[in-house]
Amino acid sequence: MTDITIYGDTYSGHCEKVQFIAAYLKKPCRWIHTDIVGGKTRTPEFLAINPAGELPVMLLPDGRKLVQSNAILLFLADGTPLILADPFDRGLMHQWLFWEQLTHNPAIGMLRFLRFLLKKPEDQIDPTLAPKAERALATMDAHLQNRTYFVAERLSVADIALVAYTRLAEQGGMPLAPAVRRWVQRVEVDLGLESLLSPP
Amino acid sequence: MTDITIYGDTYSGHCEKVQFIAAYLKKPCRWIHTDIVGGKTRTPEFLAINPAGELPVMLLPDGRKLVQSNAILLFLADGTPLILADPFDRGLMHQWLFWEQLTHNPAIGMLRFLRFLLKKPEDQIDPTLAPKAERALATMDAHLQNRTYFVAERLSVADIALVAYTRLAEQGGMPLAPAVRRWVQRVEVDLGLESLLSPP
Repeated sequence: MTDITIYGDTYSGHCEKVQFIAAYLKKPCRWIHTDIVGGKTRTPEFLAINPAGELPVMLLPDGRKLVQSNAILLFLADGTPLILADPFDRGLMHQWLFWEQLTHNPAIGMLRFLRFLLKKPEDQIDPTLAPKAERALATMDAHLQNRTYFVAERLSVADIALVAYTRLAEQGGMPLAPAVRRWVQRVEVDLGLESLLSPP
Repeated sequence: MTDITIYGDTYSGHCEKVQFIAAYLKKPCRWIHTDIVGGKTRTPEFLAINPAGELPVMLLPDGRKLVQSNAILLFLADGTPLILADPFDRGLMHQWLFWEQLTHNPAIGMLRFLRFLLKKPEDQIDPTLAPKAERALATMDAHLQNRTYFVAERLSVADIALVAYTRLAEQGGMPLAPAVRRWVQRVEVDLGLESLLSPP
């Protein structure tokens, strides 16, 4: 079987989480680096692959295409314990995946993008973003006070989706509370990120 | 078995889609009308149920709680043919669910909310919303040119999620192209919306 192909940029948490899950599940994949800040998602060649101009994009060997990072995670994790077996647990897992896209990333991912990647001066950044990011991190902190993972006390797609931008939050000047930091470290160890991100 | 409880407002497509799927699947549920425009999602009583102040909220008879409309749809449809059986089809179904939340509703649902429910004068509405809504409807139109449903030529959770605000688009002054209108009518018939929404 030929490998799957992922178009991604390691500066994007949405792309990194696809890389993380593929490595964790030992799914061979070909990574095509596509530089967002350098404009590579706006070229005619890339727009022919994804007219929305968004990363990540996953291609199967037969050319079938999937976009939306969390849909790709759910597809790659299909049939593995990363998809929780209990129907209500799976409902909660999906709930956190939508929350990550609608509430978490638009604040935490965006603030990190503007401050760390674009180096925007603070007075050019929407002043509502930092309070939104603080609220999202406070929601996670409250949830993790008596839990080791987001749902059902075991690693699932929800943790992988949420850890991607949370572990980068401090790059955007957003400190992590102790419970959130411990959860990030736990998921990083589970995923083997140290060896994945620092090849010898 | 006691019924599930749904907190919702029929002015919200996100709440209506939960009502539609529960009726289609004949899941008995108790509907607690919660008037958004009238401020009922901002009362201390409601914030105790959902601190995010958002609808819909689903409660199981034992009190367990699920939020995020599409997570509720996936939970209610679990084990039924509305969840597509083929893994890649299911991936596409999830892809459209995220697209509905991230691209479709923020333009189409928001414009209908501002124009139809809040009666905002046009010069007080973000001028980028209408072009975004047009692009989202054009994406649907292109996709439906040679398809009867969004994925795998059969009704799935993707259609139910997408039809909720699409069928209300004309209330917000957004005309539907013929292929989109035919798909809306098909899904409305499948779901039995005529009898659901016009009780004798």
